Amino acid sequence: MMERIYEKIKTYMDRAVALKRALALFEWDNETLAPVKAGEETSRIIGTLSGEYYGIMTDPCLKELTEEWGGQMQEGEIRMACVSLLREEMERLTAIPREEYEANARLTAKAGAVWAEARRKNDFSMFAPVLKEVLGYQKRFARYQAKAGQKLYNVLLDQYEKGFDMEILDGFFGRLKSELVPFLKRVMEEGRQPDDAFLQGDYPEEKQEQLARMTAEYLGFDFERGVLEVSAHPFTTSLHNRDVRITTHYKDRMDSSLFSVIHEAGHGLYEMGIGDELTLTVAGEGASMGIHESQSRFFENIIGRSMAFWKPFYPRVRSIFPEQLANVTTEQFVRAVNRVEPGLIRTEADELTYSLHILVRYELEKALIEEDMPVELLPEAWASQYEAYLGIRPQKDSDGVLQDIHWSQGSFGYFPSYALGSAFAAQIYEGMKKKIDVEGALERGEIGVIADYLQKNIHRYGRTKTSRQLLIQASGEDFEPDYYISYLKEKYGKLYGLKEDS
Amino acid sequence: MMERIYEKIKTYMDRAVALKRALALFEWDNETLAPVKAGEETSRIIGTLSGEYYGIMTDPCLKELTEEWGGQMQEGEIRMACVSLLREEMERLTAIPREEYEANARLTAKAGAVWAEARRKNDFSMFAPVLKEVLGYQKRFARYQAKAGQKLYNVLLDQYEKGFDMEILDGFFGRLKSELVPFLKRVMEEGRQPDDAFLQGDYPEEKQEQLARMTAEYLGFDFERGVLEVSAHPFTTSLHNRDVRITTHYKDRMDSSLFSVIHEAGHGLYEMGIGDELTLTVAGEGASMGIHESQSRFFENIIGRSMAFWKPFYPRVRSIFPEQLANVTTEQFVRAVNRVEPGLIRTEADELTYSLHILVRYELEKALIEEDMPVELLPEAWASQYEAYLGIRPQKDSDGVLQDIHWSQGSFGYFPSYALGSAFAAQIYEGMKKKIDVEGALERGEIGVIADYLQKNIHRYGRTKTSRQLLIQASGEDFEPDYYISYLKEKYGKLYGLKEDS
Repeated sequence: MMERIYEKIKTYMDRAVALKRALALFEWDNETLAPVKAGEETSRIIGTLSGEYYGIMTDPCLKELTEEWGGQMQEGEIRMACVSLLREEMERLTAIPREEYEANARLTAKAGAVWAEARRKNDFSMFAPVLKEVLGYQKRFARYQAKAGQKLYNVLLDQYEKGFDMEILDGFFGRLKSELVPFLKRVMEEGRQPDDAFLQGDYPEEKQEQLARMTAEYLGFDFERGVLEVSAHPFTTSLHNRDVRITTHYKDRMDSSLFSVIHEAGHGLYEMGIGDELTLTVAGEGASMGIHESQSRFFENIIGRSMAFWKPFYPRVRSIFPEQLANVTTEQFVRAVNRVEPGLIRTEADELTYSLHILVRYELEKALIEEDMPVELLPEAWASQYEAYLGIRPQKDSDGVLQDIHWSQGSFGYFPSYALGSAFAAQIYEGMKKKIDVEGALERGEIGVIADYLQKNIHRYGRTKTSRQLLIQASGEDFEPDYYISYLKEKYGKLYGLKEDS
Repeated sequence: MMERIYEKIKTYMDRAVALKRALALFEWDNETLAPVKAGEETSRIIGTLSGEYYGIMTDPCLKELTEEWGGQMQEGEIRMACVSLLREEMERLTAIPREEYEANARLTAKAGAVWAEARRKNDFSMFAPVLKEVLGYQKRFARYQAKAGQKLYNVLLDQYEKGFDMEILDGFFGRLKSELVPFLKRVMEEGRQPDDAFLQGDYPEEKQEQLARMTAEYLGFDFERGVLEVSAHPFTTSLHNRDVRITTHYKDRMDSSLFSVIHEAGHGLYEMGIGDELTLTVAGEGASMGIHESQSRFFENIIGRSMAFWKPFYPRVRSIFPEQLANVTTEQFVRAVNRVEPGLIRTEADELTYSLHILVRYELEKALIEEDMPVELLPEAWASQYEAYLGIRPQKDSDGVLQDIHWSQGSFGYFPSYALGSAFAAQIYEGMKKKIDVEGALERGEIGVIADYLQKNIHRYGRTKTSRQLLIQASGEDFEPDYYISYLKEKYGKLYGLKEDS
């Protein structure tokens, strides 16, 4: 009986998942290949497919089925997780009128191109009307879904990181502000700045591509189950655990692509590591945006900017660029890729300043959504915040408020997961070190040991566990931002030769 | 009232078209990029999306709507065409049980990989069981759809080229057999064979890619509305008239990619030329497979292997390959790309022998479907037919029955459209010459005049007209294979210096 009800629920799930995967493929294609003039028509297709997805998820029969089935199975079990995730999504969507849902899908499918054009022309006023419209949908959607008394921004935050509301985030970002802003000042004033001039130069694209593939493979990214392509902004997507796609971009600075690849490979390993029994179900995705980001940042920063990682691997990099790196030792290389320099662009930020870029976005999102700040005020507010936290002020909007695509996609509440991810990574790292000799494994080039640990403790569970449950499982305790702050202070205090306790 | 009914029908159409475009994107992605191990899971997605499409098209509400609306508008009108195409597809699908439809979609999504493996290993027995299964579905589907007394192969043929049944095709292929087989013999025995050794050699891939892009652009392929990528077998697909995709492959023989690109650009121009009011409707596709192929073959052969085309364009090719073509005049080049040589591989066949490759497939398809020939007999039957019509016999199945992907995809009844397309092209060419100075336009490099003619007379109509109606419109008469036979005999008689009337 239960079996038969689940089979019926599963047909709805299969259809919903297939449509989501199709939408993911359109998005991938759009970023990597689609011709420039395709946008308008393709956004119609995307709107219609989104409507199909909506129709399946809000079908009253599905609601009935999940009610019939409800609550009679053990927790943690896959079918339980799927039904409960379906129920959540069903409730979320049912609250939104179909026309608005489809209109928003069409709008965001086109808004990226408007944003890109505005950024190219450094003209925020071109983007403002679309942004206002996109933001309007997000607020309206949040209002439809808000529980009694629930703040709108908390509704949005919940979509990306369940249970992390403004109360927790105010605490988290407050700590970052009070600890990292003065620490950064000390680093810049008292620290010894390493030389990183050699990272910029004549690094031919074919060679960089060779490096990219070699690095992804070294990290365990399986090219029989994944691909690496080029896009303006590196990202990861997947159709299922045997079709995982990462991108990079090639710049004059060789570390730009290199660390993008390490970052995206971290996302990619997560997607490849999701259990076979989960892939192509609603539980066959990352647990949350923050956990996803914890995996990419763990590889990019904690592993990828450590001495132990480069000891066996740097010689292989140098064999690809023998002339460019002729006089650069492993130590010099590692110091260079850890150089701290407050900058204007989030995606080029170093490990220490990164979260401060997110802090700016968090505060502005709160203002837009909770205080109804008009979008027209964004450029100035953005510039002032950068001045306050990072000590530099963008001279043009393309280096400021126009730098990220996210808001054009309606992704409000998403940015905080980047900072949370970094903090989760540091906490997971502490837990991991109690179980395995991370540094030893890295020095021996046995990176598989680390990937295995993550696969067993995090990846394979997909969305059957929440980010909190995974954190507790992998580190032994609930979210604790201190690990992240201590990790940063210890690492950069040492690297920059700061005197302890000043 | 009518308006309101059509609006309702249109929501079904929009959904069906969006799903079809998603399936087209998966197919494209599969051929150009997807990782090797993705097949199994991706075929599940494709099966489910095909089921969605099926569900929309067989929805009883749609049937009722089309009946309510029925037959009250003028012919030729877009809405009329859409409703009547929807009705046909609805009837076709309603006759097939949903489980079988989805199972076939999953099967054919995987069968291509089995075929590729069997071909690589030159082992027909690996492919035979899948082929039998695929063929079984096609026969069953045909049986479901057959009208009283209708032959199964006619049902299949009708899907690709409406109104061209075995009676017409027996006549057509009979003419080809009786005229071209002996003519080919004369060409090979009495003709002067041109030298084409220089086409093979050191043609670096980057340079070939440069040539491919230059050529596609010269023909009018708009890279703001299309892309050119690489795949094992060149093909064309489109999402709509502003997203048209062609592929090529790079070989040691430079003419392989060059003529593939001209061929696929012909398909691409057709897709780009479909009217804006039709794109993303069910009438927004090529009129038939044969008409589609007429456009690609027109550009590849009639235009692309003519002296007039190369007069202005060959110097540009030579500027890309100055050393390789140093001693090759325009005339020598044109003669070389028209060299006739009976071979084993259809996709490498010259213009004269091409239709004989199709003749073999037509006769074998008839045998498989009308005479229930066991698939195990295919390799031997294939080899014997090649010996009879082309005078050469494949020594291995990878050069014989395993060379084409089509049957693995369930495309029985499709091959004849390749030969029909060539014949349509010759007939359209006759009509065109009465209206414009084709040779003069080509010599002046004004190829746009020709593309314009095709756009106005064929492309823009999409599927609002049948292949017959388009032929009559573009050439002034119904299908007449003599144009094709005379065109070939005249062209190759002259090129090979045959004495007239022997």
